[in-house]
Formats: sequence, structure tokens, C-alpha cells
Amino acid sequence: MYIYKTKIKLHDTDAAGILFFSNQLKITHDAYESWFEYLGFSLAEIIRHEKFLLPIVHSETDYKAPLSVGDSIEIQTKVAHVGTSSFTLSNDIFNAAKKIVGTVKTIHVSISKETQKKIPLPDTIKAKLKELYTEDQPLVAPQLNG
Amino acid sequence: MYIYKTKIKLHDTDAAGILFFSNQLKITHDAYESWFEYLGFSLAEIIRHEKFLLPIVHSETDYKAPLSVGDSIEIQTKVAHVGTSSFTLSNDIFNAAKKIVGTVKTIHVSISKETQKKIPLPDTIKAKLKELYTEDQPLVAPQLNG
Amino acid sequence: MYIYKTKIKLHDTDAAGILFFSNQLKITHDAYESWFEYLGFSLAEIIRHEKFLLPIVHSETDYKAPLSVGDSIEIQTKVAHVGTSSFTLSNDIFNAAKKIVGTVKTIHVSISKETQKKIPLPDTIKAKLKELYTEDQPLVAPQLNG
Amino acid sequence: MYIYKTKIKLHDTDAAGILFFSNQLKITHDAYESWFEYLGFSLAEIIRHEKFLLPIVHSETDYKAPLSVGDSIEIQTKVAHVGTSSFTLSNDIFNAAKKIVGTVKTIHVSISKETQKKIPLPDTIKAKLKELYTEDQPLVAPQLNG
Repeated sequence: MYIYKTKIKLHDTDAAGILFFSNQLKITHDAYESWFEYLGFSLAEIIRHEKFLLPIVHSETDYKAPLSVGDSIEIQTKVAHVGTSSFTLSNDIFNAAKKIVGTVKTIHVSISKETQKKIPLPDTIKAKLKELYTEDQPLVAPQLNG
Repeated sequence: MYIYKTKIKLHDTDAAGILFFSNQLKITHDAYESWFEYLGFSLAEIIRHEKFLLPIVHSETDYKAPLSVGDSIEIQTKVAHVGTSSFTLSNDIFNAAKKIVGTVKTIHVSISKETQKKIPLPDTIKAKLKELYTEDQPLVAPQLNG
Repeated sequence: MYIYKTKIKLHDTDAAGILFFSNQLKITHDAYESWFEYLGFSLAEIIRHEKFLLPIVHSETDYKAPLSVGDSIEIQTKVAHVGTSSFTLSNDIFNAAKKIVGTVKTIHVSISKETQKKIPLPDTIKAKLKELYTEDQPLVAPQLNG
Repeated sequence: MYIYKTKIKLHDTDAAGILFFSNQLKITHDAYESWFEYLGFSLAEIIRHEKFLLPIVHSETDYKAPLSVGDSIEIQTKVAHVGTSSFTLSNDIFNAAKKIVGTVKTIHVSISKETQKKIPLPDTIKAKLKELYTEDQPLVAPQLNG
């Protein structure tokens, strides 16, 4: 499974001393960019050269424990659903003690750059996401409550 | 009703040309800070002088239409629930044409700075939020689908 | 003179309790966007429809006093230089007590979107900036050390 | 020499398609946090437990070439000056082709948390920075114009 490792930066925190809430989503998007490139799909290429975009249309986030500047985290990205023109990612965020500190769920929709309307997911992306959906779920789940 | 008005800044957008998804939550928090201060509660004062904090423990966001640099928006913040130690805010984001372009729901929990444990909401905050919950809901709802 | 008024938001601060240093530049860019639109030039329009862009190629910043969440600030933007293909803006940031708390100087260069090479500033922009340069300097300077 | 490697994230860019100017400073601060921890000094520890802070009081930045989402960069942090109560860092940012794309110079001042007044740099920090100043300059310089 692909694991994104990073640290909480000073600018991610706020005057209350902990991670500002929307930065959990920002950092999870970093994990998504990294994971997507690992799968062979580059957001940079999509934005520059493709005829589609994959905007997020819905997100849900839980904050289970605070994160502070300098804290090491790991983000595990799983494919929770693959539809005709959308997919759902489920991200679990772990601290250095391997405790889950947050979750982020995002729904991405394939739209045409030209019409801004929903279009089917490109076949290569859909195939790869379906493959990950099948494989990863049973393997990953047990680790997550550790 | 308190309405927060702002514009999408260049740094809120990304290379895909539109508002970066987590910045919708960031901007909604600006609206919350402004609204809370209007109600008589200052986040700055709470962070500096009070014994409690009000971290967000859950958020849900919908993105109904893209926003671009320079777009004027209005955010309407409503109290959707008031519990013993938490409250839920429901924010509707409108563009210049008064169309709803996004929603953000956040759950805030009262915790002790010292123990980091859940504590009852301060009475003044609870009373004010309950008052708003009663008044606003029937008035606001019909406008939102306009 | 055009004055941009805003407040320091929670996400602008960091765990040290004050404005994160690069956010002073970020907020000053908000002032620039607002001022530029007031002058009749929209960054949104330039990015979407014009053949040029005005990227910043140099910046200098001083931090004279800390800013905290909830602090009201005013930013005064002055034209410090207008060249053939570039201009320099000098921004002074004041707190609620009208004390100067920071300065930001930025140099903007006109480049062709197609070639990415330096091109002369558009005549309308150059003319307006020259007009402001002449008028504002003697009037503004004395106020700034108050 | 310590080299910080990262990638430009989607949220670092703006609707003009390139890195938003103040994010070059934000990312350079990430490099500083990482480098400082490598030297044995943790910003997290300083903020939480020490009697001093090291705020930035001046910065200067050059932007020599645009950076886009997905671009790999390397940041080299050098000690450019060590004074009684301040130090200056000089950062060079390189793209994947090892071309310099930007520079960031920052001056950090040691202040007392209690009085907010300037105080001498802690001896351990001063000694380490002086050591790096002596060693690094002649070695690093030739590489930087490559």
C-alpha cells in the first residue's frame, strides 16, 4: 500500500497551537497528488494536457486527536468507491505512534474542461482504481484500528 | 441574519483555475470568526484568556459550482444544533448571482485547555447559540434554494 | 489614497501565536488585487483574457511588530517606481493604533503569456501607475512615521 | 550540506498556473524547519519550552523562473551572517534540472517570550551557526551558479 509521510509545518498550525482544521484536507490532497503520480497519473499533466479535470465535489473529515508543529504523520489512501464518472477516496491519518488522528473522505468527479459537464472517468484511471478497490480493502482494514 | 462578504483571492485558487477545495473551508472559518465576534465572542480572547477551546471535530463540504479569482461571495452561517458540549454550524455560500455554490457543516466541541477533555459549553455561548437556532431556521431556509 | 482594510484570521497565525511571516506577503497581495481592481484593472480578467501577465520577480519585507488573530490592519499601497516593463509597489501595513507594523515592496514585470519574455507594460496600466506615482509620493510620506 | 527536497503542490499554485509568490517563502520556511531540526534545534521545542523565539524580521526574495504543480525542487540553506542576537539565512532553490529558480534571504532575531525584547542568541545555536558559516561558504558558492 502507498503511504505518504510528512511532517506538520509551522504554517499548518494556528494560534491555538495545533493544526488548523482545513489544513488536514490540504495535506491529504498532497498525499492524493503523490499517490496518484505513483499510480501513473499526474495532476500536472491532466491540468495541462488532458480534456478532463477531477474536481472534488464532496468531502468529510474527522479530527480524532490534535497535531502540532513537527509531528510526523502518515497518510494511507484507499479507494472506497468507483462509479461511472466519479470515485471516492478514504484517507486515514496516523501519528508517529501509529494511532489514527484523522480521516478525510473525498469524492472526485470527472468533468469535461470544455463543457464543465460530468463525463465518464477515463478508462485507464477507472481500471486502475477498480483494481485497487478490490485488492486493498481486506488487507488494509485490520491495521487501521491498531 | 449575519452575512459575511468576501472575494476569492488569487492565492485561494490553484493551477486548475478555480478555488482549491480546502480553501472553501478556510474561508468559511473566516466567516465563523467574523460572525462569532459579531455575537460577542472573540476567538482571539478565547485562545488567550479562557480555559476552553472550541476545536472542530468533524466537517462536511459540498462544492456545487466552481469559484474563480475575483468572484464575490456571501456566506450565511446558521446554528444547526446545540448540544451539551458541542454545536453544529451550517454555512451556505452564495455567488454574486445569489446562487448557492457550496455548503460547509462543522461540529465544534468545547474542551478544557488543561485536560484536553470535553467540557460543557460555556453558558453564555450556549444561550446565544440556542437563541439563534430557534429564530433563524424557519426564516432562512426558504431563501436558500432561490 | 486607497486603503485596504482587513483582519488577521486564525489560519494566518501559527503556533508561536502570531502572523506567520509569509502571510504578510499573502495578505499584501490581497490588498494589491483589491487596489488594482479599484484602478480598473482586474487580475481575473488579465489571467483569463489578456496576452500578458504581471508576475512578481522580487519582494522585500520588514516585520516591525507582531500581529495576532483578530487584529485589524490597514494596508496602503503606493507606486514606488514605473519602468518600461516593470513597476514597484511599496505597501505599508498599519495596526488599529495606526502604528506601522510592516512593509512589503514588490516588483512586478510584464511578460508575454506566449513567449514568457519581458514585454512593455500595457499603456493604460503604465499611464495610471505613472499618474499615481506623481501624485501620491509627497502626500503620503509624512504620515508613515507617525 | 543539508538539502531539502520537495515538490510543488497544487495548493501552492494559483490560477495563473504557477507558484503563488508568497508560497516560495512558505516552502523555504519548511526547509528551514527541517534543516534546523537536522542541526539539533526543534522549532516545536522552542515554541513550547524555551524562553526565546526566533521571529523573522526581514526577508528578500527573487523569482528567477516559474515553478508549476508537480515540479521537484531542492532548497539549500546557508548561514550568511551570525550576529549577537540575530542570524541571516540565504536559501537557493533549484529545479529538477539543477537550475536556480529562486532565492530567499531571511533575518531571524532572538527575542524573549516574556518581554518581547531582543536578547542574545542562545550559545548552542550561535556556536552551531558560526561553525556552518565558516565551513559552508567556500564549498557551496561554486555550485550555485551551475
